[in-house]
Amino acid sequence: MTNTVMVEKAKVSKINEVDFDNLPFGSVYSDHMLVCDYKDGKWNAPKIMPYQPLTLDPSAKIFHYGQSIFEGMKAYKDDEGSIWLFRPLENFKRLNKSAKRIAIPELPEEYFMEGLTTLLQLDSDWIPQNPGSSLYVRPFILASGTGFHASPADEYKFIIACAPSGAYFSGKVRVLIEENYSRAANGGVGYAKAGGNYAGQFYPTQLAIDKGYNQVIWTDDNTHEYIEEAGAMNIFVRINDTLITGPTSDRILDGITRKSILDIAEDEGIATEVRKISVTEVVEAAKNGSLKEMFGAGTAAVVSPIAGFGYKETDYDLPELTNSYASLLKKRITDIQYNRAEDKFGWRYKV
Amino acid sequence: MTNTVMVEKAKVSKINEVDFDNLPFGSVYSDHMLVCDYKDGKWNAPKIMPYQPLTLDPSAKIFHYGQSIFEGMKAYKDDEGSIWLFRPLENFKRLNKSAKRIAIPELPEEYFMEGLTTLLQLDSDWIPQNPGSSLYVRPFILASGTGFHASPADEYKFIIACAPSGAYFSGKVRVLIEENYSRAANGGVGYAKAGGNYAGQFYPTQLAIDKGYNQVIWTDDNTHEYIEEAGAMNIFVRINDTLITGPTSDRILDGITRKSILDIAEDEGIATEVRKISVTEVVEAAKNGSLKEMFGAGTAAVVSPIAGFGYKETDYDLPELTNSYASLLKKRITDIQYNRAEDKFGWRYKV
Repeated sequence: MTNTVMVEKAKVSKINEVDFDNLPFGSVYSDHMLVCDYKDGKWNAPKIMPYQPLTLDPSAKIFHYGQSIFEGMKAYKDDEGSIWLFRPLENFKRLNKSAKRIAIPELPEEYFMEGLTTLLQLDSDWIPQNPGSSLYVRPFILASGTGFHASPADEYKFIIACAPSGAYFSGKVRVLIEENYSRAANGGVGYAKAGGNYAGQFYPTQLAIDKGYNQVIWTDDNTHEYIEEAGAMNIFVRINDTLITGPTSDRILDGITRKSILDIAEDEGIATEVRKISVTEVVEAAKNGSLKEMFGAGTAAVVSPIAGFGYKETDYDLPELTNSYASLLKKRITDIQYNRAEDKFGWRYKV
Repeated sequence: MTNTVMVEKAKVSKINEVDFDNLPFGSVYSDHMLVCDYKDGKWNAPKIMPYQPLTLDPSAKIFHYGQSIFEGMKAYKDDEGSIWLFRPLENFKRLNKSAKRIAIPELPEEYFMEGLTTLLQLDSDWIPQNPGSSLYVRPFILASGTGFHASPADEYKFIIACAPSGAYFSGKVRVLIEENYSRAANGGVGYAKAGGNYAGQFYPTQLAIDKGYNQVIWTDDNTHEYIEEAGAMNIFVRINDTLITGPTSDRILDGITRKSILDIAEDEGIATEVRKISVTEVVEAAKNGSLKEMFGAGTAAVVSPIAGFGYKETDYDLPELTNSYASLLKKRITDIQYNRAEDKFGWRYKV
């Protein structure tokens, strides 16, 4: 692969200003970013430049019509200083799947992969090695083309920015099963990592936070009888010894952590089921004691154990387990990600 | 009302570069814009400044989480040179309704109204007087606060930009009744003018355009049996002599043109019904000849007559009427907007 990425290095690094022992999530940015412009009907070669503000016309369609998509990835550094990504081609494929649904032109694979690896090599000092920390990598595309006509833009920017980050959630979360609000429509854009899917969650999530919960468990918009996602994560439920997650659909994101966990669980000999999960079933299981665990799964939080849930003004607590699936699966997946264990699935990608 | 709007005038006007006889829709911008910043927990006083690019951090939440809302308005100039708006307080109220749902802090009324009127007075030369033209006014709010955490921003920008504009659609449109894709979920954000609602429509609309239609008629996401909106407009159906539109809901925008048309129709003695409209009813009415008209209604296009529709691979043509409700109602509403007729409803607002 010939390197087509132009690089303009930052004159001064900001890295000494950063306290790597007290990293928040996604709010400190590395020295460089990748920018790739779509113009005159094609994606132009990516450029790496110092991390800097974007300048856009007030009529840029991103500001009016929510035409944006993103991915979430992490880069890890092992004890030998090698840099690893986890299934990056899956992120690339999903980015283009989202792009198609949001009428954004699909990106060439080489611009994504070459841009990403060149950026990570340049900013490799920014990849934390503290336990639980990593470099959060945010590829995104926004509509920079202008006009107040509600139609797709004619110009776009693909950007990758990086943020050395600590844990997304600390500790277990309490969740509220949603009875009124919804995240996605049948035939809508729920399966895409489209910006608008997230803004719509903020208000119902705040209502749940005001009631003492951390997150919302989204249910289907028609009956509110099937659980679909946990905040911005996929959701897993363990009933007795079976691990269950909902099927992907046009409402549910095809999570990379989700499908990796299914594979690892099978490898561990854990019985898994991919099928619709009804709220009634979860509540009944909580009442009769067969509900052992619930957890969210996603790139940012990896595996996020749920301590309990609220539904129809009643709270249900989950048991404290010494050998939970959540901790087993989180260890297995992070050991692969950080190059601490064998990668029998071929998921690790050396940068 | 004391004027709290600071004004920085443009040194040179761009108005002589504009061909007012050949105006596109929403793609030429006036000399000034209003900017109002939300910071440290409050909206700061608005400023008017030369129309100029915005500078935002790549991690601004607008780029990632679709946290934006907008309004569409028009300013009109009558033969005496007086400037008029149409029900601007309705736009203000809806902006704050959208704001609440998208977890954006609500805006004080005086900042909206005083900012708007000061801007229009300053850029009054930009309001076209050619028939069918007007100054399209775009108030919008975007999340400028930063961070890759999927949560509401802590900083926002409220902006008003203006574009002298010709007609949105020219001539009648052909529409496709949607059987697969959806615009909004029950319990979702369909009633808000949120950016993400529009990006999700672009791809299905392009599929319809590829089949020879101009727009999609959105149906409910659960059964696709009830018609809801026409592209980015509300939809009206005339069966025999009754004018019917769907009820507003959490999926359907509470359109200002929509409700004004209902009032004018009643004033004209036209029988109106606000109720669910099934696709079956529309197709049957088209077959038996009782379907006389369909039209979209919204600020940009005002009233947009539909020439015919497609459904399940069949095309249905609507009759050519000499005295259509669409043309009568469009004349009545635009005569009020342009100060060419009595305003018995008190909708006109002098700037």
